Amino acid sequence: MSPARWPSPDRQTLARAALTYLAEPADPALGALLEVCEPAEILAAIKAGTLPAIKPETLPADATDPICPTGLTGPTGSPARRRALEAAFNRWRLRLPWLPDDVGLTSARRDGIRLVCPADPQWPERLDELGAARPYALWLRGRADLRQACQRSVSMVGSRAATGYGAHVAGEIAADLGERGWTVVSGGAYGIDAAAHRGALVTGAITIAVLACGVDFPYPAGHAELFAAIAEQGLVISEWPPGRQPARLRFLVRNRTIAALSCGTVVVEAGERSGALNTARHAAQLGKPLMAVPGPVTSAQSAGCHRIIREWDATCVTRADHVIEMLSPLGTVPTATTAAAAPVGATRARDALDLDSARVLDALPARGAAGTSTIAAEAGVDLDTVLRCLGLLAGSGLIERCDRGWRLRKP
Amino acid sequence: MSPARWPSPDRQTLARAALTYLAEPADPALGALLEVCEPAEILAAIKAGTLPAIKPETLPADATDPICPTGLTGPTGSPARRRALEAAFNRWRLRLPWLPDDVGLTSARRDGIRLVCPADPQWPERLDELGAARPYALWLRGRADLRQACQRSVSMVGSRAATGYGAHVAGEIAADLGERGWTVVSGGAYGIDAAAHRGALVTGAITIAVLACGVDFPYPAGHAELFAAIAEQGLVISEWPPGRQPARLRFLVRNRTIAALSCGTVVVEAGERSGALNTARHAAQLGKPLMAVPGPVTSAQSAGCHRIIREWDATCVTRADHVIEMLSPLGTVPTATTAAAAPVGATRARDALDLDSARVLDALPARGAAGTSTIAAEAGVDLDTVLRCLGLLAGSGLIERCDRGWRLRKP
Repeated sequence: MSPARWPSPDRQTLARAALTYLAEPADPALGALLEVCEPAEILAAIKAGTLPAIKPETLPADATDPICPTGLTGPTGSPARRRALEAAFNRWRLRLPWLPDDVGLTSARRDGIRLVCPADPQWPERLDELGAARPYALWLRGRADLRQACQRSVSMVGSRAATGYGAHVAGEIAADLGERGWTVVSGGAYGIDAAAHRGALVTGAITIAVLACGVDFPYPAGHAELFAAIAEQGLVISEWPPGRQPARLRFLVRNRTIAALSCGTVVVEAGERSGALNTARHAAQLGKPLMAVPGPVTSAQSAGCHRIIREWDATCVTRADHVIEMLSPLGTVPTATTAAAAPVGATRARDALDLDSARVLDALPARGAAGTSTIAAEAGVDLDTVLRCLGLLAGSGLIERCDRGWRLRKP
Repeated sequence: MSPARWPSPDRQTLARAALTYLAEPADPALGALLEVCEPAEILAAIKAGTLPAIKPETLPADATDPICPTGLTGPTGSPARRRALEAAFNRWRLRLPWLPDDVGLTSARRDGIRLVCPADPQWPERLDELGAARPYALWLRGRADLRQACQRSVSMVGSRAATGYGAHVAGEIAADLGERGWTVVSGGAYGIDAAAHRGALVTGAITIAVLACGVDFPYPAGHAELFAAIAEQGLVISEWPPGRQPARLRFLVRNRTIAALSCGTVVVEAGERSGALNTARHAAQLGKPLMAVPGPVTSAQSAGCHRIIREWDATCVTRADHVIEMLSPLGTVPTATTAAAAPVGATRARDALDLDSARVLDALPARGAAGTSTIAAEAGVDLDTVLRCLGLLAGSGLIERCDRGWRLRKP
């Protein structure tokens, strides 16, 4: 849909855009309020300096979230609860001066940036699995249909300080996934994220970078061109409004969206303290398949992957086949195991032998020949058996008769 | 026990020694017979050219083994059963000329080789888990007590065509296991086996090489010195009598003994067709812990390890700690996870912060200073909260007050 054909945003959309300026994503107080109030009503209350016309006791009972525990603690309707709600309004009000004209939508359109809200056709319903921690709205750079792009998608995350090995493997797997019609979702960081995005881009596939800052904010700066390429072919998206800078905790909050957007998450390289493991935890908490790519045990950058495999949290995957198998309904793709069993070398005549024939073949001397009873004794089979097996082996072209008995045929 | 003090072998021991010459190990017909007859009785029957004085219908009902299916098929007491038993006696008789004087025990003693039978104090009772496929007896080179050496032992197996990575990791893990009093059991082959034996040897630990040929037969020839070193410090053992050559199928039959002797098996590197996976299968069938060490997914030599991890047959292990944890009764060793969680870097002051304080710290500019309300808006916290957090952060020495507000302290 070209910017020229965008409909005028309605009141609720404008309010959601404003809320992305005023509150940090996954603010549990706002998440709880949004379950009982319209966005425009909440925005009006923030601007008016009053609480909205709701009773705090109608809010969901547990409005504290593990992602963002500064929530509405205390029993429903308690004074502690009301104080928490007032504190939330106070912090949102502090940012009222940050609200740009037209909540930034006009200048965003000029920069090719658009907003997608929960009611829109392009909203990925998967994000609703986040419950009250669902994004208020998403800012997008790029023309692709977000909902469609997420339909068959894989999150690939890993260490910024990736090794050459990790970057290579991430790129290969992402390219294979892209070629087979899968969207790669990642965080746009250096290292594994960049390798995954680039692997998808080279195959012409859609890839989605989920940033922890405004979609127009080039962080890391060295990735400005990469983000432009992603926006051209896929999508650069964010819960933060244009212009917003990244911050350490924003990456952690952002990770839940990376995990929630896709069908499953693959960790390619992750040290013991890597933020990628935070994304992995979100994927697991959302009940989505979690996968990890192993690496040398001598590499600290694979230690996190090995730990989650070891503790049975993640499935060990080594190629795109395995990832697709994990994410596809049972039976819709040939299993990697089936596929792997066949191609490992051509079946050799030796493999097709029955056990007695294999023993007889083993018993023939490497050089020279041997008589029938010598072969039988060496093979540990009786004479009837040795005769049957020698005939079969000769028929397969593996051995031949000579004047001194039987000998191996040169291949 | 020095050779001079060995007691004279009894009749049953002599018969078991003879059976190792006449039958291949895990011959299901002999396994079945040994459950109802004394070894000496079977040997006498083979020599006399008659069936032993037992009724075939008294033999165990299922005398066919997956390891060696040329067994006593057909219902108990059926003509097919009797024919199978006759064929078995015929194949054993073919080897009667191979029996040396004194069943080789005299010359074996001269070479420092001894025999251990199921009734002996040094017999590892773990081998009895093999049922009818239990070794008839074991030939040993080395002075160590076999039963004691197996008490706390790990089988380490892998590819002969090991990579430098695989050999390094096998050696490291074996050395760590050795240092902590564990015996390493392996197959004496090139590659991973050799690296595992050598890793154990350098720490002065006992290591056991289980060969698929006589313990005096240097196969591979390049390992003659390694075997001498193992015999000096540990044990070289075999089910085959001295002088017997290796054969392809003997390695497969031997593998069940490697798996059965130890508390669990670790595969370090294994291609898709590696014999090490055969040992792994035996370990799993015996209900023993199976572990595998991952490696680069780009290495074919790790493909077998990744497959068994992927399919949940094996636990992913990356160091000796993990192996010991798997093999120790619950609670007797600190778990690797517990041990791993602590040592990853010193706890940083930043990690100890509550979420609001972390947000406030995040909100301080990288350079220069900011005022209280700017920081509060940036952090997304209300003014009361920002004041509490700024005090706490200043108390931790992370930030300091200056004439323009608050700024980060240089570390």
